[in-house]
Amino acid sequence: MTVKLIPVEGIPEASAGDDVAELVMGGLVMSGIELVEGDVLVVTHKIISKAEGRVVSLDDSGPDGHRHLVEQKATAILRRRGSLVIAKTRHGFVCANAGVDRSNVAPGSALLLPVDPDASAHRIRLRIERALEVSIAVLVTDTFGRAWRHGLVDVTIGISGLIPVVDYRGTKDTHGNTLEVTEVAIADEIAAAADLVMGKATGIPAAIVRGVDYPKGNGRATDMVRQASEDMFR
Amino acid sequence: MTVKLIPVEGIPEASAGDDVAELVMGGLVMSGIELVEGDVLVVTHKIISKAEGRVVSLDDSGPDGHRHLVEQKATAILRRRGSLVIAKTRHGFVCANAGVDRSNVAPGSALLLPVDPDASAHRIRLRIERALEVSIAVLVTDTFGRAWRHGLVDVTIGISGLIPVVDYRGTKDTHGNTLEVTEVAIADEIAAAADLVMGKATGIPAAIVRGVDYPKGNGRATDMVRQASEDMFR
Repeated sequence: MTVKLIPVEGIPEASAGDDVAELVMGGLVMSGIELVEGDVLVVTHKIISKAEGRVVSLDDSGPDGHRHLVEQKATAILRRRGSLVIAKTRHGFVCANAGVDRSNVAPGSALLLPVDPDASAHRIRLRIERALEVSIAVLVTDTFGRAWRHGLVDVTIGISGLIPVVDYRGTKDTHGNTLEVTEVAIADEIAAAADLVMGKATGIPAAIVRGVDYPKGNGRATDMVRQASEDMFR
Repeated sequence: MTVKLIPVEGIPEASAGDDVAELVMGGLVMSGIELVEGDVLVVTHKIISKAEGRVVSLDDSGPDGHRHLVEQKATAILRRRGSLVIAKTRHGFVCANAGVDRSNVAPGSALLLPVDPDASAHRIRLRIERALEVSIAVLVTDTFGRAWRHGLVDVTIGISGLIPVVDYRGTKDTHGNTLEVTEVAIADEIAAAADLVMGKATGIPAAIVRGVDYPKGNGRATDMVRQASEDMFR
């Protein structure tokens, strides 16, 4: 079955106190999109962080102010190289600068990750499901680097209504072998797909992914985080 | 613009000597897909490896035979835990088992990566462009794990006709800040997207990704590999 990645256009810049579900529903109307059962709404965390008032002023607008904030927000620093810090966030995510972002906010300030991105996703989902009477899943995304590959990709940091990892353990292939690839991070594949229509410079903060056969349920983005005991690259 | 992910159904299992471009074009006919200018054809490496005769017999069909082959194929072992080996391939990719795969082949044998996946992608692209008179890009994919996240995602290991990393350096956001996220791994986002319609257990080895605004050019998958001097997680 063909999957569609549909950008939600016409969503304005968010400010503290805004209702993201309302902003998204306005964008759906502007874009002429009618949600259908099983659609996945993908929302970049930036609009949520802004609506939740997660913009902070840097004590010092230069690199020192930024570094200080990153160190405050990190629960562990894995590596440093020049101005780049690879750090673990309070949620458990390993990413550059512990998720502290200076782009898309006024100079001299920075944007933090939502306090609880799963809860943010859940609130958006419930508001939209009630208003539009349709069952959907919601993913909140951010842009992460990879240890051994250039370039960044969008990944999922908040979830409502979807199980993020599909488990094929015990499934046999066409030769009767048990599959070696047993766990697919479907939430991250959906996040990466959605970025193809959101993009970094266009300012489109949401997309609908339609037609994916994903496992429904109460997954959390932190289910995708490797625990310290399983982490081979600290 | 909406992006479509279209599975190419009806492609048979490949054997050594098969022409993958022919197999894919047969599948396009069976699936009723007519290629359009700018389509990206995504092909899992397994069908290519089989067509290129990259199936090898294990000296010993148990875990020892597999471990021996992985050690032969790895140019560097980064980590070991139990039967899991994280290793670098001759191409420079860091992945589990140096890309040696025992699923989807007969028991007692294993599938290796194509010798030169960029060249494989290029051959497929030229054959299809000539036969169907349409300009496309071709990506060859494999399924990789991530250092700090559970679950696997498809990534690009071979490219023809596309630049894999989009560089936004110097681009300003709506606040006039220079973007912090400067390089997007669009080839890997397309690979992850395509896996949403290929899947692990369904045996669909190819998909068309239509509507992505990607940079055209002579990119190589190895352009995405971090060089040893930049690798913070060896």
